[in-house]
Amino acid sequence: MKIPVMHIPGVSDTTDETRTPFPLDQWYVAALSKELTDQPLARTLLCQKVVMFRAGDGKASALEDRCCHRALPLSSGTVESAGIRCGYHGMLYDGQGACLEVPGQDMIPPRAKVKKYHILEKDGFIWIWFGSDEAAEPGFAPPDYPLHSDPTYLWDGAAYHYEAPYQLIHDNLLDLSHLGYVHLKTIGGDAKTHMNAKMDVTVDGNTVRVVRQMLNSAPPPTYTAAYPFEGNIDRWQEIEFHPNHLRIWTGAVPVGAEDISNPARGGFHMRGFHGVTPETESTSHYIWTIATNPVSNHDEILRKVFDQTAATFDEDKVIIEDQYANMVSFGQTPLVSIHVDAAANRARRIIDNLRTIR
Amino acid sequence: MKIPVMHIPGVSDTTDETRTPFPLDQWYVAALSKELTDQPLARTLLCQKVVMFRAGDGKASALEDRCCHRALPLSSGTVESAGIRCGYHGMLYDGQGACLEVPGQDMIPPRAKVKKYHILEKDGFIWIWFGSDEAAEPGFAPPDYPLHSDPTYLWDGAAYHYEAPYQLIHDNLLDLSHLGYVHLKTIGGDAKTHMNAKMDVTVDGNTVRVVRQMLNSAPPPTYTAAYPFEGNIDRWQEIEFHPNHLRIWTGAVPVGAEDISNPARGGFHMRGFHGVTPETESTSHYIWTIATNPVSNHDEILRKVFDQTAATFDEDKVIIEDQYANMVSFGQTPLVSIHVDAAANRARRIIDNLRTIR
Amino acid sequence: MKIPVMHIPGVSDTTDETRTPFPLDQWYVAALSKELTDQPLARTLLCQKVVMFRAGDGKASALEDRCCHRALPLSSGTVESAGIRCGYHGMLYDGQGACLEVPGQDMIPPRAKVKKYHILEKDGFIWIWFGSDEAAEPGFAPPDYPLHSDPTYLWDGAAYHYEAPYQLIHDNLLDLSHLGYVHLKTIGGDAKTHMNAKMDVTVDGNTVRVVRQMLNSAPPPTYTAAYPFEGNIDRWQEIEFHPNHLRIWTGAVPVGAEDISNPARGGFHMRGFHGVTPETESTSHYIWTIATNPVSNHDEILRKVFDQTAATFDEDKVIIEDQYANMVSFGQTPLVSIHVDAAANRARRIIDNLRTIR
Repeated sequence: MKIPVMHIPGVSDTTDETRTPFPLDQWYVAALSKELTDQPLARTLLCQKVVMFRAGDGKASALEDRCCHRALPLSSGTVESAGIRCGYHGMLYDGQGACLEVPGQDMIPPRAKVKKYHILEKDGFIWIWFGSDEAAEPGFAPPDYPLHSDPTYLWDGAAYHYEAPYQLIHDNLLDLSHLGYVHLKTIGGDAKTHMNAKMDVTVDGNTVRVVRQMLNSAPPPTYTAAYPFEGNIDRWQEIEFHPNHLRIWTGAVPVGAEDISNPARGGFHMRGFHGVTPETESTSHYIWTIATNPVSNHDEILRKVFDQTAATFDEDKVIIEDQYANMVSFGQTPLVSIHVDAAANRARRIIDNLRTIR
Repeated sequence: MKIPVMHIPGVSDTTDETRTPFPLDQWYVAALSKELTDQPLARTLLCQKVVMFRAGDGKASALEDRCCHRALPLSSGTVESAGIRCGYHGMLYDGQGACLEVPGQDMIPPRAKVKKYHILEKDGFIWIWFGSDEAAEPGFAPPDYPLHSDPTYLWDGAAYHYEAPYQLIHDNLLDLSHLGYVHLKTIGGDAKTHMNAKMDVTVDGNTVRVVRQMLNSAPPPTYTAAYPFEGNIDRWQEIEFHPNHLRIWTGAVPVGAEDISNPARGGFHMRGFHGVTPETESTSHYIWTIATNPVSNHDEILRKVFDQTAATFDEDKVIIEDQYANMVSFGQTPLVSIHVDAAANRARRIIDNLRTIR
Repeated sequence: MKIPVMHIPGVSDTTDETRTPFPLDQWYVAALSKELTDQPLARTLLCQKVVMFRAGDGKASALEDRCCHRALPLSSGTVESAGIRCGYHGMLYDGQGACLEVPGQDMIPPRAKVKKYHILEKDGFIWIWFGSDEAAEPGFAPPDYPLHSDPTYLWDGAAYHYEAPYQLIHDNLLDLSHLGYVHLKTIGGDAKTHMNAKMDVTVDGNTVRVVRQMLNSAPPPTYTAAYPFEGNIDRWQEIEFHPNHLRIWTGAVPVGAEDISNPARGGFHMRGFHGVTPETESTSHYIWTIATNPVSNHDEILRKVFDQTAATFDEDKVIIEDQYANMVSFGQTPLVSIHVDAAANRARRIIDNLRTIR
């Protein structure tokens, strides 16, 4: 089985001039809304150093993180009502990157401005647009995520950083069969049950969907910690891949209680949003939220689910970073695909196609 | 306004074969006298690894920091009455780099010697000469600094290390308008007052002089901590740039008390010596002293002035290192000059000229 | 005196295509037997990433440290009765690198296997073979070290890591004249006595032997700590260099008590085994044991001798790493040989010859 083209910096196709390292003309998750307070937030996104801030009107802005005077990061400066002020000689910029003030001189030099990025805040996320034509406006809106406004659910999130390229995170999230080996302490379960679970993979445009069901299986630690399961469970995992993020809906009902193929099913739910945003060609931001549906002890259950999800991603981070470091050490050596790679391989074809320069 | 040529490694003109990275045929500050005790002192200066030491006669010497036998740094060895002894097999060198002893063998191989540097100690500094012709003697003497012998003043100093090229330190010291943004806790003051202060810039050969006066301004924290000012002050900043160091004479008198243009003015004085010595093309030594004129509580006032000056330079270090890292990230992107850059731009032209190979 | 060719990465002959960086067709020490427990042991040897483990039968195995599925280091996995299981998706390999199981699928892909290394455990060491022809079987057996089974001796050992190429460790061990400068706190002694000791160097094939005797000399700290010497001693140092390891037999008797040239001599003995195994071209493993012959207080004396030997090697590590870093800084600059280098220079010729591609 041939593994589709994958951009592994230091390993494969790094000098391919027919491809960009990342899909462009996409919205990516730049931050969680809650990360943007009264301080500037510096983050490198798709190899570009960006500073984000909220000026007096609360509106989020994103500029190139570099004062045009002597190149100090604007993120070393301070946020004011009108915009962001450089911490060296006090030049002030608004959210569009226009220079509003050069302290000590009346005339503002015409070239005194910094590049601005298109960003848009909704559903608790700050989305940022990276276009193949920098001058062009975004061609469409960022995706909706109404779950964050659904009163049935409580949610929280965090921004993680990985020393690994973004496609290895896609691989990891598209193949939950690793739960039985990597995540025994939280959302794992019997390894054989996981590996043998029936898996339906479908592709629709740039979306890949995976549905797995593990009927009559033992509940893993996070499930019993958050829900009063008394015996075995019927468990589902539904993954939806998009080029800029994944949505993973997992959960369970007591064994035989109802049809878990029905989206209106009850029981215990964990619904994850996984923004996978390249930082550089070899490092990534992983900006995630987890939502759950506690019927009582709301805050306590949310805290448990959040903490155990974070612990799970800490485990993934170790694996994925070790994997990438080893790939770089060994270089371009053939790998072997197995049955669990079906969805990941399809996602790779989508990314590969989106990276092709037309 | 075009910014004069500046050597920013990783950013600009790094492969220019008509220029040396640093001005040569110059004395540079290698160390403070007090740093050279009974231990060897290793320091890389203008990309050369140097070991300095005082043998039994107290005279300072400087050699290449590498035993000619098996390349161990001589600075890993020990200082003896006759010179410095390698810590591996005990070869002994005098201050001229001649091998005096090869333990266990009578004959000293003719090639057994290490390169010596011209150094000269005066005024509390160890000066070192770097010539374009390594074999030539220094063409002139290092500068005098009689202030260190002036009984009106007490002084102390320190050697700092910057992860930034030397010219960014020149920029910083030649433009004190940043005090109102960077040094509010010590020698700052009202930002607008600083940015709008009248500034006279004059050039004389390889010297740039800057005079700024801030009349009737509020005294900054260091000033009130060290001198009994009761209201506003008339404040001066006088900067003298030389290719290897800067001298900055700042101070203040009570508002209207006397003419601060008169060098015999009274009041509170802080006089800084700033040796800026390249370590490598992208890192620098910043070896400074600060002198002040307490009329009572001498040691306490000196300690306050020294500590607050050190705190000020700690703040500068953060800014300058962030600035350089950002310049490297962004590469050769155009910058915009403003009014406060006048003196820094003139110093850049002097350095540029001194770097040109004739 | 010309110094024989030596491979100092970053310094000399690194692009020489007529030579391999290390002697091949050799057994090297990969580990001490005691290091291989119920966990996988990852170690890079001659630039190859190897995982070692003992499966259920206790037999040591060594594989390439990379799962053939998605490249995770196998050393991140777990050891089972049948072999080693990858920690990501659970693929199981036996000690020959054959894949025994792909969880969730019946068919094992024919290409699913990892490279195995020839290893052999004896005398408390795990030896590994690196051949110029990877497919060929080892041409001979690893060396014997019967001392580890000699009831007169107690021994222990450790694996050290050096940020320096292997030949600098050879140099260090072949020239014990440095004891008087580097190891004054343990096995040193008077520097002049060491440097002036008579030294016999003989070469026999790929073996270099050095014999030094220091008659009527003062006992160093380790000797008096471990043996009831009451006055001066007659002391010997006998070094045997092999391309993959050295054996150093040192010891002493009370002055004049007996002929120390007789291998059946009594007194205090320290016998070291020094496996010097390249990790990369610029880093090394130094896997050593020390044996001694206490007549009473066995464990206490062994502990003292081991601890002081470890302290001695800690000192060597500092010197050798400083030496290498300085060599890299200064590049290809000529060095000068002295009398103590005779044996080291002969060993270099042997290594140089073994590195030549025929």
